[in-house]
Amino acid sequence: MRGTVLYAPGDVRVEDRPDPRIEQPTDAVIHLAATCVCGSDLWPYRGIEPVNQPTPMGHEYVGIVEEVGSEVRTIKPGQFVVGSFFASDNTCELCRAGYQTSCVHREFAAATGAQAQYARIALADGTLVATPGLPDPDLIPSLLAASDVLGTGWFGAVAAEVGPGKTVAVVGDGAVGLLAVLAARQLGAERIIAMSRHEPRQKLAPEFGATDLVTERGDEGVARVKELTGGLGAHSVIEAVGTQESMMQAIRSARPGGHVGYVGVAHDVALPGEELFFSHVHLHGGPAPVRQYLPELIGLIGDRAIDPGKVFDLTLPLEQAAEGYKAMDERRAIKTLLQP
Amino acid sequence: MRGTVLYAPGDVRVEDRPDPRIEQPTDAVIHLAATCVCGSDLWPYRGIEPVNQPTPMGHEYVGIVEEVGSEVRTIKPGQFVVGSFFASDNTCELCRAGYQTSCVHREFAAATGAQAQYARIALADGTLVATPGLPDPDLIPSLLAASDVLGTGWFGAVAAEVGPGKTVAVVGDGAVGLLAVLAARQLGAERIIAMSRHEPRQKLAPEFGATDLVTERGDEGVARVKELTGGLGAHSVIEAVGTQESMMQAIRSARPGGHVGYVGVAHDVALPGEELFFSHVHLHGGPAPVRQYLPELIGLIGDRAIDPGKVFDLTLPLEQAAEGYKAMDERRAIKTLLQP
Repeated sequence: MRGTVLYAPGDVRVEDRPDPRIEQPTDAVIHLAATCVCGSDLWPYRGIEPVNQPTPMGHEYVGIVEEVGSEVRTIKPGQFVVGSFFASDNTCELCRAGYQTSCVHREFAAATGAQAQYARIALADGTLVATPGLPDPDLIPSLLAASDVLGTGWFGAVAAEVGPGKTVAVVGDGAVGLLAVLAARQLGAERIIAMSRHEPRQKLAPEFGATDLVTERGDEGVARVKELTGGLGAHSVIEAVGTQESMMQAIRSARPGGHVGYVGVAHDVALPGEELFFSHVHLHGGPAPVRQYLPELIGLIGDRAIDPGKVFDLTLPLEQAAEGYKAMDERRAIKTLLQP
Repeated sequence: MRGTVLYAPGDVRVEDRPDPRIEQPTDAVIHLAATCVCGSDLWPYRGIEPVNQPTPMGHEYVGIVEEVGSEVRTIKPGQFVVGSFFASDNTCELCRAGYQTSCVHREFAAATGAQAQYARIALADGTLVATPGLPDPDLIPSLLAASDVLGTGWFGAVAAEVGPGKTVAVVGDGAVGLLAVLAARQLGAERIIAMSRHEPRQKLAPEFGATDLVTERGDEGVARVKELTGGLGAHSVIEAVGTQESMMQAIRSARPGGHVGYVGVAHDVALPGEELFFSHVHLHGGPAPVRQYLPELIGLIGDRAIDPGKVFDLTLPLEQAAEGYKAMDERRAIKTLLQP
C-alpha cells in the first residue's frame, strides 16, 4: 500500500509500505475512506519533537473494515468505522469512568500510520465505533473530524464544564479550538469568545457559534476577556494550543471558581503554583477520551446537526501529503484532508 | 490590649497594642474567646516568607461581638461569631458562586491580628457567622478550628470531589490534613488513606476517620497508594502542604480522571505541563472559601457530630504565644490554642 512517512523535520514522503495485517487477535484492518494531517503532526514536522527514525504518520481515520482478528466480537468486515488515536479496551475501570485514553491497555490505535490506504487498528472492539450503515459521502469529512479534532474540542468543552448560561473563552484557533467553539455551542453556552488572529479562522469561528472575537493575545487578550465579562473572567476557558503562553492566557482568562479545560498537548509548560493557587480555577484536560463521545458525535453528524468537516479547507490526494503538511505549517490551510 | 507581633523569623512577642476600633462602617470589633497559631504562620516564622516589618499575627478567631459599624445590619453586639481569614461581602457574583475568598471586595479579615484580645473584622455582615446562642465552652476549640483549618480541610475534600464509594488519599498530616480526613469521612468516603510520618498525628488520623496509614513519602508513598488501589491510584487526593514534593505526590497518587484538591499554600511550586497533561487528573484548590461552609460546620459542631477541636494538643495563655509557635515549629505540637 501507499503510506506517509516522516524522515526528518520538513521531510515527509508517501511511499510503498507493507500492507497491514492482523497481528493480534483483537486487531482489525481497515481500508481508509479519508485521513488527514493533525496540528500535533506539526510538532515533529517542525522539529520541536525529535524524529529519531523514519516514522509512519497519521492517527485520524475513518474507513471500511477489511478484516478482523479471531477475538473481535462486535466489529465486522464491511462496517464503516470511526476510531480514536489511542486504542482502548473500553471495559476496564478507567474506560468505564470515561477515560479511554488512560485505558489500562492503552496503545497507539494505528501503529502502522493512518495517513495511508490501510491501517491496522488495535483493540478493535473497544476502539472502533461503527456508523449506522454506510454514510453519505459528504458526511465523511465530518466523521473524520470526529476521530480526533472534534472529539478533542468536545472534551475541552466538557473539561471546562461548559453549559447553559455560561460564558466560554477559547484559546487557540486551530481545528481543535474551532471545534471547541462548536462543542461549546452544542453544550448550550450563552456566549462564546473565540481568541483568533488569523482571518480564515475568524470567519469560521462565528459559523461554529462564536459570539465574540478577540484578536489580542497574552495579557492583552486576557484584558479583553475581562472587559467582556464584567471584570471577572469567563466561566469556562478551553485551551487548545499547549504552550506556556496559551496555558497562562487560559488560566488568567477564567474567573475564580471557573474551569479551564486544556487539550493542547503541553510542550515545555510549567505552571506557577502560587498563581494557580490564588487563581481559584479548576484545571482539567489531557488526551481527549474521544471514544467516549463518538456515539453521540456520530449521531449529531448523521442528523446533520453539526458540520465539523468545515475545518478541512484543503483536500489533496494522499500522494500529495507533503504539500498538505506544508500548507498547514505555513498557515495556508487550517486542516488538510487526504484522499487515500 | 495585648497582641502578638512577629518582628523577625523566630522572634514573636506579645505586647501592648492599640485597642482596635471601628474604622469602616462595615467593621465589627470582637472580643476573642480563643485564637491560635496556624501552620501558615510558620512560613514567616521560619523565614521562608519575608518579614519586612513588625507584623501583628493571627487570622483564626472566635469571640463575642463588642461593637459594630453604622452599616452593619445582621451582626449584633453580644453575638458569638466565627469568621474566616479573608473578609468577603458575601453578595458579589463570586461570593454567590461559593468563592468568598475571591470576593471582589476581599481583604484580610483581621488586619489588626487575631492573636490578641480584640480584633477588628472587616465586612462584618459578609464575613462573620453567629452561633445559635452562646456555645458551651467545651465547643470553643472546635468552633475555632472551623475558622480556618477545618474549613480549609473541608474545601480540600470538596475540591477533590470526595463522596460515597470513593477512595481518598490525604497528603500532609498537619491540622489541615487531619481535618481533611474528618471532612472526607463526613462526606461519605469509603476509604481514607492518611499519609503521615509523625506518631501523634498517626494516632489522631484514625480517630478522624482514616482507614489506612501510609508512612512513606514521595515516590514510595505514591507506590503504596497505588498498591492500595489496585494499581490505579485514589479517586480523590487532598494536598495540604504546599511544596513541590507534596503537590507531585498528590498528583501522582490520583488515578486518571481523579480529583486533586489542594489547599496547602503553594511555595516555590512549578507543575510540569506534560506530566499534568498525561496524568488526566482534575486540579482545584486555593484559599478555602471557609465562609461558605461555616453555617454547616457550626451546625455539625453544635450537634457534637464532629470534634475538630482535637487538633489542638497544646493550650497556652496568649502571653506564651512565643512558646506556642516554637512547639509547632519543632513539631512538639500539632496546633496551639491561645487563650486571650
